[in-house]
Amino acid sequence: MKHDDPQPWQVLERRYILDRQPYMILREDTVLLPNGARIEDYFVFEYPDWVNALAITVDNKIVLVRQYRHGNEGVHYELPGGVADPGEPHLAGARRELLEETGYGGGEWQPWIQLSPNPATHTNTCHIFLATGVYKMNAQQLDDTEEITVQLLSPTEALDMLRSGGVAQALHSAALWRYFAETGLP
Amino acid sequence: MKHDDPQPWQVLERRYILDRQPYMILREDTVLLPNGARIEDYFVFEYPDWVNALAITVDNKIVLVRQYRHGNEGVHYELPGGVADPGEPHLAGARRELLEETGYGGGEWQPWIQLSPNPATHTNTCHIFLATGVYKMNAQQLDDTEEITVQLLSPTEALDMLRSGGVAQALHSAALWRYFAETGLP
Repeated sequence: MKHDDPQPWQVLERRYILDRQPYMILREDTVLLPNGARIEDYFVFEYPDWVNALAITVDNKIVLVRQYRHGNEGVHYELPGGVADPGEPHLAGARRELLEETGYGGGEWQPWIQLSPNPATHTNTCHIFLATGVYKMNAQQLDDTEEITVQLLSPTEALDMLRSGGVAQALHSAALWRYFAETGLP
Repeated sequence: MKHDDPQPWQVLERRYILDRQPYMILREDTVLLPNGARIEDYFVFEYPDWVNALAITVDNKIVLVRQYRHGNEGVHYELPGGVADPGEPHLAGARRELLEETGYGGGEWQPWIQLSPNPATHTNTCHIFLATGVYKMNAQQLDDTEEITVQLLSPTEALDMLRSGGVAQALHSAALWRYFAETGLP
């Protein structure tokens, strides 16, 4: 906190609107702001934490996936990932999701970036790990409701793809742009 | 589209759950996947487009703001921005939001990055513009429900802040990391 930071809002009332665990809980808060303003119906989405892998293969390819996303009705490049299981450590969740969605595993893992999908409306955090030296271990193991293709891109291909808008998901874009900022452009 | 891309889902039923225009419309779709799987209650948030400014002053400071965000109950560094007004061009919206939230304006503007807050659940796009050579023109002009402090950071300060997790909002993190990737680390 900085000394002149805006202060938290006070919650006057809290109503739960939808409970579809484990995917999403929607609540509506009536809040009082420090300046006296009142918002009757401020919506908050309670989600579990998400996990992703920015995975680089032993031959320096970035492991990406493509899947249809029904919010913006498009197919884009994404980092493999998903929802952390209850009680599952974030790193274990990211390794599991990479293996399930792509068949890739192994390698060296480190925390890469932690972000909020939207701090104004979402309670959860997305934990993205950088994995280097991964290799193909298994076939994909997808859920019934997952249809995912795996794409390996060289750093140059991934940069061109990013610049031309190939990644829509802001969380994944941030992780990839940080990669190119920290390692230098290919 | 790539030739092996997963195909769109078919919407079997659509129910509107909440209509709080202009902030948010929540709908629930029953969908059929190409593989025959059926999801009864897939939630989609219909939002208007959002606009932001990655604004650099005439003396090379990045114009950031801090405000309390009730989703994750924290205060973080953010890019100035907000919701595009109905019919308002995105660039005009970004200039307006920068001026209202910070008092900064002028300069040269260009499209910088377009991202989805979440392609799985959100219909809208966030349009972020890069503005260079901005300067202080006015005092802040805030809405009743906005309490925002303005912070000017040098590129080195902004990079340290980013690396230590000072930006939570993924959309803003992506825009800033792209800035450091494209311009080189300070």
